[in-house]
Amino acid sequence: MTDPGAVPTPQPRRGEPDERASPPRLLVWGVTGIGEIGRADDVAGLIAEAIATQGDALADRDVVVVTQKIVSKAEGKMVPVDPTDPRSHREVVEAESVRVLRRRDDLTITETKHGFVCANAGVDLSNVEAGWAALLPDDSDRSARRIRDGLRARAGVDVGVIVSDTFGRAWRRGLTDVAIGCAGIAALVDLRGSVDSLGRELHATEVAIVDELAGAAELVMGKADRVPVAVVRGGPDWWFRRGNVHDELVRPPAEDLFR
Amino acid sequence: MTDPGAVPTPQPRRGEPDERASPPRLLVWGVTGIGEIGRADDVAGLIAEAIATQGDALADRDVVVVTQKIVSKAEGKMVPVDPTDPRSHREVVEAESVRVLRRRDDLTITETKHGFVCANAGVDLSNVEAGWAALLPDDSDRSARRIRDGLRARAGVDVGVIVSDTFGRAWRRGLTDVAIGCAGIAALVDLRGSVDSLGRELHATEVAIVDELAGAAELVMGKADRVPVAVVRGGPDWWFRRGNVHDELVRPPAEDLFR
Repeated sequence: MTDPGAVPTPQPRRGEPDERASPPRLLVWGVTGIGEIGRADDVAGLIAEAIATQGDALADRDVVVVTQKIVSKAEGKMVPVDPTDPRSHREVVEAESVRVLRRRDDLTITETKHGFVCANAGVDLSNVEAGWAALLPDDSDRSARRIRDGLRARAGVDVGVIVSDTFGRAWRRGLTDVAIGCAGIAALVDLRGSVDSLGRELHATEVAIVDELAGAAELVMGKADRVPVAVVRGGPDWWFRRGNVHDELVRPPAEDLFR
Repeated sequence: MTDPGAVPTPQPRRGEPDERASPPRLLVWGVTGIGEIGRADDVAGLIAEAIATQGDALADRDVVVVTQKIVSKAEGKMVPVDPTDPRSHREVVEAESVRVLRRRDDLTITETKHGFVCANAGVDLSNVEAGWAALLPDDSDRSARRIRDGLRARAGVDVGVIVSDTFGRAWRRGLTDVAIGCAGIAALVDLRGSVDSLGRELHATEVAIVDELAGAAELVMGKADRVPVAVVRGGPDWWFRRGNVHDELVRPPAEDLFR
């Protein structure tokens, strides 16, 4: 079989910057020293303080990724569960769900009232005191907006904020962190209308950058709640706009092939 | 409702480093100047050369993320398709698949002969010359091992290598880059047996770090094939071991709730 030969490389047509010039360099780091979070704690203030204590400072167009757990704790989304009774956890999961997709042993995959499809409706017993479970925030996009507004007020910076959680996937083992809310950053970047390097229009290239950013942040966080916040610096200007996980990224059941 | 109070924070028990000490800082950058790839091109050699031309140098325990497209081109995985006949593409997709999961309009979700579940069996018409389609490598883990061996020979470095591709997901809109092969790096990091920050054992915390790394790399790549390689520097020592996407990360149909 003959391989295609080289052909001229046209310029990108719109939207996309020309990466040949200078692709971004991202720096990703974890924020330590935030400590245990309680109800009504000022998450933005604690983040700003912890970053300052580390000797760092936030800058405009940094992306601040905050794990759901501390957001839920600050928002009082803790409910009591009886650790000796598995039904107790299951009842909480069902109250958070609008639809059960699959059940096996003690794993339930549900669609949550927020529209997410995940294990056990995101109800989490780890990193919370025995006898309690952490629910997802009521509206994680709103949570992200509040933290973004708080960081503007506290630190004078205009940043993107992502609220992240750890989800499983169909077809692939292992968990990754994804975005359940965002503010000040696009959830999806639409590269349709760009041309590929051979000059043909690209199709179906909406990239979920907030999920990729949440995953990048997880890499510096570890799972033990000691690094509940990470910062990603160096993203290009065109990432930053009004963004929203619920409207942009949550796939409505009607357009979903797997519900 | 009363919130749980603060409790002592125990040390991690095994495996996991104590992130309080110093969480990693990751630097992610794109490699430009690799140019069009043809059959039998030495991908490792071209990567090493392009990085040197950029004024950078690889270091031990860097992670080198290489997009599937250039691997497929170098391995000669190009097949002719008739761009005027949609059946032509469909026949190629079916030849690459062992099972069709869903079909809607011109989108087919299949299980490929490699075990991946993705759109159109990963057969890609973008960034290849009209009249040709790029198939997935036969064994992307082997491809990653070859590139890793080549970088050791060419640049004298011991790196992790990930071959990445762009997949859609169930339940969430948008695409993200994931790993379809890896070498010299764990596909999954098992944090089970760690304790959470309140001292209870964590369950089900196998993190797919190669998928998170592939996503992080996509953020500096863009979609137009001009930045087909990225480097992630700063990962902790415990990421690096013999790794394998096929055995660690591809979920066998029997344990999959969505097949």
